[in-house]
Amino acid sequence: MEDIFAYIEQNKQRFIERVQWLCRQPSIAAQNVGIQETARMVATLMEEVGIRPQLYSTDGAPVVYGSLGSGSRTLLIYNHYDVQPPEPLELWESPPFAAEIRDGKLYARGSADNKGNLVARLCAVESWLKTRGALPLTVKFVVEGEEEVSSAHLHQFVRQHTEFIQSDGCIWEFGGKDIQENPGIYMGAKGILYIELEATGAKRDLHSSQATIVPNPAWKLVWALGTLKDRHEDILVEGFYDDVVEPTPEDMEYLRRIAARRDDDERRRDIGIDQFVLGVSGLQLVKRNLYQPTCTVCGLVSGYTGQGSKTVLPSRAIAKVDFRLVPNQRPDDILQKVKRHLAQHGFADIELRVLGAEYPARTPVNSLLARVVEETTKEIYGRDPVVSPLMAATGPMWELTAQFGIPTVGTGAGYAHSNGHAPNENIRLDDWFQHMKHMAVIFDRFAKATNGTAG
Amino acid sequence: MEDIFAYIEQNKQRFIERVQWLCRQPSIAAQNVGIQETARMVATLMEEVGIRPQLYSTDGAPVVYGSLGSGSRTLLIYNHYDVQPPEPLELWESPPFAAEIRDGKLYARGSADNKGNLVARLCAVESWLKTRGALPLTVKFVVEGEEEVSSAHLHQFVRQHTEFIQSDGCIWEFGGKDIQENPGIYMGAKGILYIELEATGAKRDLHSSQATIVPNPAWKLVWALGTLKDRHEDILVEGFYDDVVEPTPEDMEYLRRIAARRDDDERRRDIGIDQFVLGVSGLQLVKRNLYQPTCTVCGLVSGYTGQGSKTVLPSRAIAKVDFRLVPNQRPDDILQKVKRHLAQHGFADIELRVLGAEYPARTPVNSLLARVVEETTKEIYGRDPVVSPLMAATGPMWELTAQFGIPTVGTGAGYAHSNGHAPNENIRLDDWFQHMKHMAVIFDRFAKATNGTAG
Repeated sequence: MEDIFAYIEQNKQRFIERVQWLCRQPSIAAQNVGIQETARMVATLMEEVGIRPQLYSTDGAPVVYGSLGSGSRTLLIYNHYDVQPPEPLELWESPPFAAEIRDGKLYARGSADNKGNLVARLCAVESWLKTRGALPLTVKFVVEGEEEVSSAHLHQFVRQHTEFIQSDGCIWEFGGKDIQENPGIYMGAKGILYIELEATGAKRDLHSSQATIVPNPAWKLVWALGTLKDRHEDILVEGFYDDVVEPTPEDMEYLRRIAARRDDDERRRDIGIDQFVLGVSGLQLVKRNLYQPTCTVCGLVSGYTGQGSKTVLPSRAIAKVDFRLVPNQRPDDILQKVKRHLAQHGFADIELRVLGAEYPARTPVNSLLARVVEETTKEIYGRDPVVSPLMAATGPMWELTAQFGIPTVGTGAGYAHSNGHAPNENIRLDDWFQHMKHMAVIFDRFAKATNGTAG
Repeated sequence: MEDIFAYIEQNKQRFIERVQWLCRQPSIAAQNVGIQETARMVATLMEEVGIRPQLYSTDGAPVVYGSLGSGSRTLLIYNHYDVQPPEPLELWESPPFAAEIRDGKLYARGSADNKGNLVARLCAVESWLKTRGALPLTVKFVVEGEEEVSSAHLHQFVRQHTEFIQSDGCIWEFGGKDIQENPGIYMGAKGILYIELEATGAKRDLHSSQATIVPNPAWKLVWALGTLKDRHEDILVEGFYDDVVEPTPEDMEYLRRIAARRDDDERRRDIGIDQFVLGVSGLQLVKRNLYQPTCTVCGLVSGYTGQGSKTVLPSRAIAKVDFRLVPNQRPDDILQKVKRHLAQHGFADIELRVLGAEYPARTPVNSLLARVVEETTKEIYGRDPVVSPLMAATGPMWELTAQFGIPTVGTGAGYAHSNGHAPNENIRLDDWFQHMKHMAVIFDRFAKATNGTAG
């Protein structure tokens, strides 16, 4: 692979400018900012590296698809070009779409999640083609634009173009190193139900002296939220845990291996907390992180939120709440249970809006692609990967691959301080080139691998 | 009084421009915006009408003081030049400091609370002086700039210049008409304790997939708030109600008279609620509004508050909470009880900041000034005033007058849709000129009144 690695080394500066170019374009799905423009830019990048792009429209963001190469094996690559909202803006050290490089790191909303990985993979294709002329396998890129809003319309693309999904395995959008620099790979994803709750009171804000007699929606929201989860972290929605599947003995073996390589205290200190939730550590920490569903207040707003005091009785209060779901919970079922819960607790008048829903997914842990990625990770990174049979995060894995039984593996250029979904999101450029080389090696080995050996 | 009323009629346009000029200057105490500038503008206005102003500095906003006139009687007039924050800006139909006039109403943050009344009173002084040459009594203006942040430094002025407070009665900053156009007057005020609670979690926002294991300050805040007040509106802080004094039989007679003149349903429809808190109405509604203390969430903010979804685990969550206090609750005592409550419920790590504290106040219901204001209200407004022995709102009445036993009466140019502390704050110019004339009549009658009759 030295020829391809040498090409990457020679083109580093150009590749960096390529990822900066994409990161400088805002593409905030939640706010419908820059989505069409960014889809066209992804198509342009595909053309640049030698792939003929096709844009497929949906009722939401377009899906950019492109395939290239031939051979007995087909590798699907899933990425997304949309990003999370950049707020709170005041906590960014450089503007979120400036794509500034400092100390070998690229800072931008979307650098880690997920434009960096996308561009690295496209650069890997270019590097292969420029060095060897043709890919040794068929590579299919599916790049969507609504991952950060629960891939709301990806199912339209999948249903209409199921042939584009057919493959022997899929490299998932992301992956990265933990705080001890262990590379991690993932073979499943949690689902999600993201809702917004809005309580209303008087039809306009009032002087807070009226709080004796006029209902306060902020209180109503606080009381309603208080019925959803208690201080022992138990989610109180009736039937919420009914379909939760415990990890299998095989899963537990993976979790034990993860726990053995994790330094809980270092991780705890790094994020600045005294203890993890309920004081868990070791194997229980890993198990809880990967196999427990959540009910998380992601946002709260009501009344006056500025500096100092304002004595106002708010007319509305909003909470954004995500439920991360584990196999075999179903977002539609959980939604019905949450609605019933609110009604039973006297909160039927709180408006509930669904902002996203995805199924959890399991994909085969023992697959050819998984073995290829594990072995090549060791070669490229010099360490065995930390293998997670499920990840704490969510993506459209059920929709895109799991429902078709396609082995799916997440690997990528992230690291412990990538700050995904948070201010100062970034990737280290060294990690990024490492992922680029890793992808080229995966092309090689997956093309060659037989079912008995990874190549 | 026809000579003075005629002067007012002839100078209407100039007086309107005067109040617009003051309203166009932002003076947001909570955000420390424009305070010094506005104090100087108030001094300029005093000079314009013929009063020599004096600016007294405090550790906070300056107090503008001016007195004029002579005679056996002294009338203190209390106003403030600071305003509430104008947010949420998007709900204003014209910019909050544009001071636009539409349909005979002046729209501006501060128009009702409290620049309108201040300017009306200054114009009343000018009108008297220009018509009759000299005031028939001594009028003292105390105009502070921190009323909206609990008059944090007014005590410094009061302590150093107690002689400026000495008077036979005080006209309080505001008053106005209820939804049935009954003019209201007030002779007491609630106190307040305004606190900000901040819960913190990880030292930076995290991807919400980490909510399985990393504590969420938004949940902590929700749980903590849930311990402060229950759904029956009972405030659960131990000892909170200990010093609450029930209304006297005389107070109850006032409350019955208020209830007899109020149309609860019209008021309810006007603000767009199905029922008042706990379904109260009639006498109980009035009693609850004036004699019950409150615990009000005035603001809530955590995590993502923008459009759509963001899957973030917040690193901090803030609530702004005001407690309106009734006689004989004391803000310092309530603060200690709230702190103890939070500690006892396991929330000692929630940071508590005091943003304001004021004592509740009672002033004599049967005073010469009260009788003068009642009788003149009937003459000017053509109706008996609705007399409240206490008001639902708060001000530094204890600090400025009640502690010295000075009879204090609130009357002013507000009305039911003045939107104090809320978007589209406004006054009706007809009400404003009515208050201006009323003030001139009060000067006349209070100067003449004997203790046996109002004049």
